[in-house]
Amino acid sequence: MGVSQRIDTAITRAIRLGQDGQAAPKQLADALMYACTPGGARIRPTILVSVAMACGDDRPEMTDAAATALELIHCASLVHDDLPCFDDADLRRGKPSVHRAFSQPLAVLTGDSLIVMAFEVLARASAVAPDRLAPLVSLLARQTGMPHGICAGQGWESEDKIDLSAYHRSKTGALFIAATQMGAVAAGQDSEPWYELGARIGEAFQVADDLRDALGCEESLGKPAHQDEVHNRPNAVAALGVEGAVTRLTDILSGAIASIPSCPGEAMLAKMVRLQAERLTPGLTPVRV
Amino acid sequence: MGVSQRIDTAITRAIRLGQDGQAAPKQLADALMYACTPGGARIRPTILVSVAMACGDDRPEMTDAAATALELIHCASLVHDDLPCFDDADLRRGKPSVHRAFSQPLAVLTGDSLIVMAFEVLARASAVAPDRLAPLVSLLARQTGMPHGICAGQGWESEDKIDLSAYHRSKTGALFIAATQMGAVAAGQDSEPWYELGARIGEAFQVADDLRDALGCEESLGKPAHQDEVHNRPNAVAALGVEGAVTRLTDILSGAIASIPSCPGEAMLAKMVRLQAERLTPGLTPVRV
Repeated sequence: MGVSQRIDTAITRAIRLGQDGQAAPKQLADALMYACTPGGARIRPTILVSVAMACGDDRPEMTDAAATALELIHCASLVHDDLPCFDDADLRRGKPSVHRAFSQPLAVLTGDSLIVMAFEVLARASAVAPDRLAPLVSLLARQTGMPHGICAGQGWESEDKIDLSAYHRSKTGALFIAATQMGAVAAGQDSEPWYELGARIGEAFQVADDLRDALGCEESLGKPAHQDEVHNRPNAVAALGVEGAVTRLTDILSGAIASIPSCPGEAMLAKMVRLQAERLTPGLTPVRV
Repeated sequence: MGVSQRIDTAITRAIRLGQDGQAAPKQLADALMYACTPGGARIRPTILVSVAMACGDDRPEMTDAAATALELIHCASLVHDDLPCFDDADLRRGKPSVHRAFSQPLAVLTGDSLIVMAFEVLARASAVAPDRLAPLVSLLARQTGMPHGICAGQGWESEDKIDLSAYHRSKTGALFIAATQMGAVAAGQDSEPWYELGARIGEAFQVADDLRDALGCEESLGKPAHQDEVHNRPNAVAALGVEGAVTRLTDILSGAIASIPSCPGEAMLAKMVRLQAERLTPGLTPVRV
């Protein structure tokens, strides 16, 4: 089974466990599946599984659970971010957003349920590696909640004075840091050496997202473009110009590859980073690192 | 330190760890504290700590963490339930609801952050009892998310045909079941024998809440009364009349006390259940069990 199929299988299985025939409210059960499948690029769990494989992947069930948990958190954040009180987005991944397809109450509950399910999935799988549960829960929580996770990232948008570095690290970087660190821990390795790779991939992703938003690549964004301008959010293209932003993206990716800790799968990981970079900027420019 | 002070100290400490001076968005940090302090009756964590103490409370840090996690989930649910798309409540615990005092985006993020923090608190404390983390995360997640937790309970309100038994067990009973079962596990005991006590306290709480809502006891409810009628929700007083509902409440509480598993603190627990029953129905009627 390829990485992509492995991730989709694990996610679908987790959500099916959150349904329960007659004894569960059907619309909310449907909304959970709708929010998570078919997926987007699954870039965060792909990075997580790639790091775990580079570290030996000695407990594949734990890796699958970590990848699933991370993607569930990401999907939850998309559902809540799309709500009318945030981005008020009608579309997500080329179909109506959850609150458009179902309702606002069901969209709030979908996000809440997916966050809870993420931690539940980790606990369920931990029978195969009990000592990895506490660090996995801690890493995922740290990069999701307050004061440093994606909730904090969104929270910065309500402040008059934004700490831009904290904002970007929390809003976009956090789940990439979770991806590399959780991948290492799922495979029984220390998380600390994997922080930098995640942080740098996160920075690259932010610049690539800024490029696609500014240049109006709606198809690969999977959501309406030019939202940074509409919502007056900081954007690397506004600051550096298109060429400057592409140069910056290339530099960050080189740094990311240089930061990969020595491990059996080092070369494979470098290839994965290059591949993700190409997926991030389809048809935009040849980013060679 | 009494149980009540012990709980408040643990909750305040957990939320302070979610702040971080300059590096966290201030309004969201303030909203987390606002949503959780000063507390309501803290009835769920009080039950949890009481059960843990009845079971020996051999790892007080784990008990404190479990009580905190449960109360954070409860507070998160109140913040989200008050949103305009649900109850549209202006008041909670006698002060403006979080979305009124801050904003809707910050209220959504407050709920999300509190859910995440609940699991983080459990992971952090688990160093003193690593084998208790997986069951505590599983129990809390089961009673919070889909298909059987409080999210499912709210989800039922979007269905045309409601499974009333599943609705009440999920919406109100779930966190009481979590309270008794997590209390036992935090003290190193098996969770299963403690299910029934939680379920029965949950039923009693539902009937008491119905009574207070129908009779307009806004002060002890801490929120606007007559909401069941306004939102056309099932209510025990509508079904049984006031006297019938009081009789039912007394019967349920007797059953709750009879269900307490044999343990060193059995008599203390029975007293706690009676005390909570009196707090649930202040001035309403002498509920003697």
